[in-house]
Amino acid sequence: MTGLLETTIAAIGPVDPDVTSGARERWATRAKPPGSLGRIEDLAVRVAGIVGVSVPPAIERPAVAVFAGDHGVVADGASAWPQEITAAMVANMATGGAAINAFAATVGATVRVVDVGVATPIPDVAGVIDAKVRTGTASLATGPAMSIDEARAAVEVGIVTAQALVAEGADLLVGGDMGIGNTTASAALIATFAGADPGVVTGPGAGVPAEGIDHKRTLVAGAVDRAKLLDDPLARLAEVGGLEIAALVGLHLGAAAAGVPVITDGVIAVAALCVADALAPGTASRSIAGHRSTEPACTAALEHLGLEPVLDLDLRLGEGTGACLAVPVVRAAVNALRDLADLPT
Amino acid sequence: MTGLLETTIAAIGPVDPDVTSGARERWATRAKPPGSLGRIEDLAVRVAGIVGVSVPPAIERPAVAVFAGDHGVVADGASAWPQEITAAMVANMATGGAAINAFAATVGATVRVVDVGVATPIPDVAGVIDAKVRTGTASLATGPAMSIDEARAAVEVGIVTAQALVAEGADLLVGGDMGIGNTTASAALIATFAGADPGVVTGPGAGVPAEGIDHKRTLVAGAVDRAKLLDDPLARLAEVGGLEIAALVGLHLGAAAAGVPVITDGVIAVAALCVADALAPGTASRSIAGHRSTEPACTAALEHLGLEPVLDLDLRLGEGTGACLAVPVVRAAVNALRDLADLPT
Repeated sequence: MTGLLETTIAAIGPVDPDVTSGARERWATRAKPPGSLGRIEDLAVRVAGIVGVSVPPAIERPAVAVFAGDHGVVADGASAWPQEITAAMVANMATGGAAINAFAATVGATVRVVDVGVATPIPDVAGVIDAKVRTGTASLATGPAMSIDEARAAVEVGIVTAQALVAEGADLLVGGDMGIGNTTASAALIATFAGADPGVVTGPGAGVPAEGIDHKRTLVAGAVDRAKLLDDPLARLAEVGGLEIAALVGLHLGAAAAGVPVITDGVIAVAALCVADALAPGTASRSIAGHRSTEPACTAALEHLGLEPVLDLDLRLGEGTGACLAVPVVRAAVNALRDLADLPT
Repeated sequence: MTGLLETTIAAIGPVDPDVTSGARERWATRAKPPGSLGRIEDLAVRVAGIVGVSVPPAIERPAVAVFAGDHGVVADGASAWPQEITAAMVANMATGGAAINAFAATVGATVRVVDVGVATPIPDVAGVIDAKVRTGTASLATGPAMSIDEARAAVEVGIVTAQALVAEGADLLVGGDMGIGNTTASAALIATFAGADPGVVTGPGAGVPAEGIDHKRTLVAGAVDRAKLLDDPLARLAEVGGLEIAALVGLHLGAAAAGVPVITDGVIAVAALCVADALAPGTASRSIAGHRSTEPACTAALEHLGLEPVLDLDLRLGEGTGACLAVPVVRAAVNALRDLADLPT
């Protein structure tokens, strides 16, 4: 099959080393002691490489896309929260009452909310984009969460979303998630793609009590055993992933193909990036790790991908919140590379 | 003597625990899993306590004040950079070409540049406030860096600056510094006030080569031996401090007295906060640690003051740059506490 997914993957090339070395050379002549801006210098160089310009233009229009989907594994006791919370929070985001709305407004980003697979009816509010592939996944505990065709369709929702946002002028993307049960799917994906121990990377998520984590570990370990028998990244995603996670895979691929930086959020987003980087090696090097979630699988995935997060503030909310907080840091890095005077002589 | 310094210190009271518990109670009913915003929740509670309102208003007008001064100890080989760089960088900041200008513009903050004690002529540019107390300190290697009256005058420059910015509407302050040689004075202050080992807390600053650090350690150790014989915090500041550091002490005191949060920058700012907290205990609890500088004395001071920094990005530039990057994080915390909807039921 040669569809949108394949053409997008084919468009993702390596970062041009001449561009990044040009950025490093400019830093060396700016008005400050060499290296004194530390990781800010690295961030500006990274953006230069992603956009393909040694002195990138200012980031003026950051955009957040939040993808929502439900998880059949919730019926198997994966979460302390009822599935209906997904639909309620989608409505809350569409009407501006979620943490991602407050953070995005603070950093000057827009928020788009996309339903890729919410299982229960969403309260009647304006502003939710309907791109539903199916009403929630099947339980990853007992079989594939979705078919490979459904996984592909959900990935393509993310690609189309990235393309639409970039066409509207977005020059920096943040991917967010909403989906009760999705730390279970993310832990399974990270254990599968990063080769991490399911017992180690399964965490409490949004509030599984200590006595429930062993059960969650058992669910994840069984799913990982099945997923590891599969070679195709898309088949692994279908086996143990989620619809909103698949859309985040697509957002990363679409942004990488367009030469637009994406800031990853926590464990859900980095699980998606593990899949995206397996589908199109090099996608991770076109992303910026926004923050380190407290969920243990997040650190395992960041290490697997070779990424060091910008922030480490003990967040574990998702929605894109941690990534959103990193937006001004990335903007400041780009502005400093461009606007600093020459070194005084 | 009862002057501006004493009336300012007298105006600094403890944080009201009813205000901070009110903020915590509001977090508990917001639309997210309890505690899932981690240190963001703590930051909003901290701002609540500082401003004295459980749900603080949005931070609309952050302001950076950069204080500049020179250090006699540069003549004793404390720095790899010539003293004239201080004046050149002051002009660069006043004309918008320094890193602090790029960062402040990114986060929507104004920048005020105040000459408290630059030793060499500043290039003729508009926008530098002349509050010079003396043309650089004497060398802290061989005697007091300044008199106690000069230290008091420089502290009062900082208090007056805080008062002026607050009167103009600033609702969040960032203190920055410019002064070749000032990591030497800061290491001496932190070793004195935090009881830290001068050999451990003396670092490379803006670029002392490895073979020069032992010499810098010797300078610091001798200064600390003298300062520790003094009891009065102002006398210790005069003995081994700097004019721009003294002004930062005043900025912290003035902001704390006014109930306005201050974000600390790196090693220079936290050295000043050690002095401010010794003059008016509780001042540190009215500050927010913006970032952890790579300079070892910064970590020693943060531990002494019981502060955990927002960012840790390997910065060591000063100017207020690291603190400035924390401004949007603090703003987001305050906005989220105010704007999040009630928990869905």
